[in-house]
Amino acid sequence: MAPGGLVTHVTSRQVVATYIVETSLPLDVAAEVLAGEQSTGTFVRVERESDDLRARFAAQVHAIEELPLTGGSPLPGSIGDPDERRRARLSLRFPLDNFGPSMPNLLAAVAGNLFELKEFAAVKLVDLELPLPFADRYPGPAFGVDGTRRLMSRSEGAMIGTIIKPSIGLSPAELAELVGELAEAGVDFIKDDELQGNGPAAPLAERVRAVMPVLERHADRTGRKPMYAFNITDDIGRLAANHDLVMAAGGTCVMVCVNLVGLAGLEFIRRHAAVPIHGHRAMIGAISRSDQVGIGFRAWQKLARLAGADHLHTNGISNKFYESDAQVLDSIAAVREPLLGLTSTVPVLSSGQWGGLAHATYAAVRTTDLLVLAGGGIHGHPDGAAAGVASMREAWESAALGETADTAFARSQPLRRAAELFGPVRA
Amino acid sequence: MAPGGLVTHVTSRQVVATYIVETSLPLDVAAEVLAGEQSTGTFVRVERESDDLRARFAAQVHAIEELPLTGGSPLPGSIGDPDERRRARLSLRFPLDNFGPSMPNLLAAVAGNLFELKEFAAVKLVDLELPLPFADRYPGPAFGVDGTRRLMSRSEGAMIGTIIKPSIGLSPAELAELVGELAEAGVDFIKDDELQGNGPAAPLAERVRAVMPVLERHADRTGRKPMYAFNITDDIGRLAANHDLVMAAGGTCVMVCVNLVGLAGLEFIRRHAAVPIHGHRAMIGAISRSDQVGIGFRAWQKLARLAGADHLHTNGISNKFYESDAQVLDSIAAVREPLLGLTSTVPVLSSGQWGGLAHATYAAVRTTDLLVLAGGGIHGHPDGAAAGVASMREAWESAALGETADTAFARSQPLRRAAELFGPVRA
Repeated sequence: MAPGGLVTHVTSRQVVATYIVETSLPLDVAAEVLAGEQSTGTFVRVERESDDLRARFAAQVHAIEELPLTGGSPLPGSIGDPDERRRARLSLRFPLDNFGPSMPNLLAAVAGNLFELKEFAAVKLVDLELPLPFADRYPGPAFGVDGTRRLMSRSEGAMIGTIIKPSIGLSPAELAELVGELAEAGVDFIKDDELQGNGPAAPLAERVRAVMPVLERHADRTGRKPMYAFNITDDIGRLAANHDLVMAAGGTCVMVCVNLVGLAGLEFIRRHAAVPIHGHRAMIGAISRSDQVGIGFRAWQKLARLAGADHLHTNGISNKFYESDAQVLDSIAAVREPLLGLTSTVPVLSSGQWGGLAHATYAAVRTTDLLVLAGGGIHGHPDGAAAGVASMREAWESAALGETADTAFARSQPLRRAAELFGPVRA
Repeated sequence: MAPGGLVTHVTSRQVVATYIVETSLPLDVAAEVLAGEQSTGTFVRVERESDDLRARFAAQVHAIEELPLTGGSPLPGSIGDPDERRRARLSLRFPLDNFGPSMPNLLAAVAGNLFELKEFAAVKLVDLELPLPFADRYPGPAFGVDGTRRLMSRSEGAMIGTIIKPSIGLSPAELAELVGELAEAGVDFIKDDELQGNGPAAPLAERVRAVMPVLERHADRTGRKPMYAFNITDDIGRLAANHDLVMAAGGTCVMVCVNLVGLAGLEFIRRHAAVPIHGHRAMIGAISRSDQVGIGFRAWQKLARLAGADHLHTNGISNKFYESDAQVLDSIAAVREPLLGLTSTVPVLSSGQWGGLAHATYAAVRTTDLLVLAGGGIHGHPDGAAAGVASMREAWESAALGETADTAFARSQPLRRAAELFGPVRA
């Protein structure tokens, strides 16, 4: 099969799902197995499965491009001659009429039983093209970049934020004290750790009650209210009340762990929310880390944006997790690509971030419409949190001006001091 | 580290999460990395991370048991000397106070960022022990085995069901005709395919309107109303209305694709539902198929039951998917194990099922408190659906009597005819 073979016109009533697969079947046969399982087929041909029905409802093979094998282990239970195994990028076209513009029902077709097919030694959903009816049904982000900048009074430049550390265990009083220090230090944004939910040791209501007066006093004094993303992740039936608690206290952001309430849970709270939704991607590794199975970030982030994430975690370069810089930069680019005319979502860079990564990141992404979070990188700066924030902000300002990292370091004492602890600098 | 080393008392305020891991770090060090990341740790020690805080909130290593390596590829981005890599079963104890008995917040701790740790060449959550406060918060299944049997008037024996095939594409009129035939054929249960959601080609409302009068007429005539699981999977905000549509028409079951609305979505509709919830596990392969990453069925099914699944798909032996019989039988056993005093969930066996698998299945599971679904195996029986149902029921009755498969085949013409198409028989 020639690379790109089979591509035909995609209509506004079709979804294209793209997979990385490995199989010992001929690639065109394997593609038909996948298309059949996910639309009109069953394991024996049954009455009423007419040719007309198949013509209207069967998924169609859209494109097949063979790729080199990677040497990865085949998935458990896969069948076929290992010597015949080939890897490919395979796209299927699904009629929208099969499921309508409903995310959960779409997923049954493009990401349902197919991961269990024994004909595949690898099968990973890596991209989705969705037609406009999805944007008619789902409004997407309500705030995005502009709304977030407005609420945090940061009209330009990278938005600099931090994460409450230690993740859990602070009393509300200690939390309030820390938040006061961080606000004083000049951050635009503070977030709860994803581990800080609504447990008995620090209930959300108590955290809100402790934190918001500190931020309000800071705003009265300075004219800027840092955005605090309270983690409202919880049972679906509690999300609205959790959100309302934050709103009532003057909060300007809620954080939702998208995979923990489900994409559908995010969509549910989006219908209710009156502040930006900070979309955390905890558990993403469970579905996306394997090269052989699951759902890649590029496909997943489209659904999270459609479901209404105003901010979405992408990881940052030189992070403490497994992802390469290339993967991270692709994730940031993916979140910034236009999607069905929706308001743009803010990529959130975090994990091991500090000022020394600004120039290398900016060189690749060419924007400051980013929320850059440093936990240890701000709290742990040798000269304290204010110096931590200054080091981040000065580095990003320099990068956005087109300067070199060397220039920034020559000018910025906080950045030089940060490098003593967090170096080396990424040029 | 000795097998089972480190086990200490688990209290009613702790969760134990068990993982399969591979790492090049010493196992005890790797265990501390995992425990730290998922509780009080960050990548630099920060102010306020006191020893007292760690003592109260840090996750603790509970047990480490080294396992043989399997030869599977390490996860992308994992670090360390490959020659040092070891595999282990590792359990951590988490203080319940960190998250409280909230499933989404629990998941942040036991199944959040940890899948992204580069210290791990494999990291899969395989089991969970939950303390009683979870059962105080979540009522679990409302109907389970007994409620399901009552509603379908099948007080004993395996519950025999089928799936609408072709999966999608039937008009409501064709669907009604097929349902009439299947009811006539004597099935206890019929379900929508997971691919049949609420699309424009066959909206749920039209399906309900077409199907329910057929079942009501059948019930008037025979005294038995087969249970029909309408797939109500959709946006969270539409689940209750979808459910109510089914109820209003006299329906006795709704199907929810658990992973597509999220475990949290299932829990949400459970609070509203007045009929059994048929839990489909579409997408489970994305999180559970890899041996190296994700969440195993044994852990996942506990959460699905807690969230209220009255029925839960487990696959069946000799299925058309990748799972071995051993895996399937372990899944069925897992669903049948007691869990926090909850009402028992019905395991749902499907995929390539026919009468010839009854004796081998029964020999392993020793119960008929099962919903056994055959799609092609009933629709595609050489003598029609009634013979298909008879072949299934006669085989399961024989198995439950302790007979051999040979005895059943000698007696049952429908079973012999089924074997011509679906054989060989599993003794």
